[in-house]
Amino acid sequence: MAEATGSPRRRANWQARRDAIVDTSAGVFARQGYHATGIAELCTANGLGKGALYHYIGSKEELLAAIHDRVMDEVAQGADRVAEAGGSPSEQLARHGDALLDVIQRYPQHVWVFLHEFPALTGERAERFRKRRRAYERRIEAVLREGVETGEFRALDPWVASRAWLGMHNYTYLWFDPGGRLPARAVSESFADIFLRGMARRPSG
Amino acid sequence: MAEATGSPRRRANWQARRDAIVDTSAGVFARQGYHATGIAELCTANGLGKGALYHYIGSKEELLAAIHDRVMDEVAQGADRVAEAGGSPSEQLARHGDALLDVIQRYPQHVWVFLHEFPALTGERAERFRKRRRAYERRIEAVLREGVETGEFRALDPWVASRAWLGMHNYTYLWFDPGGRLPARAVSESFADIFLRGMARRPSG
Repeated sequence: MAEATGSPRRRANWQARRDAIVDTSAGVFARQGYHATGIAELCTANGLGKGALYHYIGSKEELLAAIHDRVMDEVAQGADRVAEAGGSPSEQLARHGDALLDVIQRYPQHVWVFLHEFPALTGERAERFRKRRRAYERRIEAVLREGVETGEFRALDPWVASRAWLGMHNYTYLWFDPGGRLPARAVSESFADIFLRGMARRPSG
Repeated sequence: MAEATGSPRRRANWQARRDAIVDTSAGVFARQGYHATGIAELCTANGLGKGALYHYIGSKEELLAAIHDRVMDEVAQGADRVAEAGGSPSEQLARHGDALLDVIQRYPQHVWVFLHEFPALTGERAERFRKRRRAYERRIEAVLREGVETGEFRALDPWVASRAWLGMHNYTYLWFDPGGRLPARAVSESFADIFLRGMARRPSG
């Protein structure tokens, strides 16, 4: 992949410029699709010549992978913070929901692009995408499994329950309006209210 | 739009052939994307010349609209049957889930295509797509609102609750495996179990 070289400051500058290119390009792909977008359009959108663009992104497919990594980095960091904070499975799952919707609302174009265009990733990049997505799903399943084991949750299949939870949250990318009447936190709290009560062994009142 | 003419039998034949073309083309769009697919590829996939293809589908955009309508026709018919059967809001919502997952599992490629490519629809076709989708969402909201009004469900915002329900079910298009260990009905029953208990005013045990 394309990589920064030279002094730490130079590398930091390269990375910041690359992130900006990834973000701008996510908007272009979201509007007109990955396959329909040519390198020339990406150059225009980013105000760069072809050589400079390739210096930062390597290839169009690497750009698509970078759009995905930018979101998954944040999703993984959010999940790390939830795990570090600890708490009961219910508390953790509620916080996972807050964290996930926070990322989706901040990166709606990135999420749109990778949920729609991930089949365009090939070889090692496709494998990396699948692994990172699967690792996140496993964390959610693990919280559900823990809740079943401690008796906090009913003995439902953690895999199926995790699909319900992931679907509720991930699908917000299609309708959530960051400028709308409902903040992301209100949505995640409502979802946790329904889902956790649905899973709870003992009714919470 | 392209339309059948002539005798009833001739119209039925035209419609059956058109449906087959819509289904085959949904597979092509699902594999390689709407924008990246040319009319020549659709001709090859359907074993038709350009003139014959246009006779059935009118235009590529009309084909995309037809892929959507083919799924929405079934979703609407399923929802009609649920409404006719009546029952409590909980019973109706469980049956809506069964009906929706049944359609999604039977038309995975169509659902993939229209969830990913609907922004390519323009003008009246885009409007029709939005209206039909909105009409279905309103039916789900109405069942939730009825449950809140009768006291069967907790007093949660029916709009937000409907988004949780729709997300759980719609998102199955990304992971449900029609040949896998879980039949669609098992998934919809698990989802109803979690969601209805989450909404219930009185714990059901």
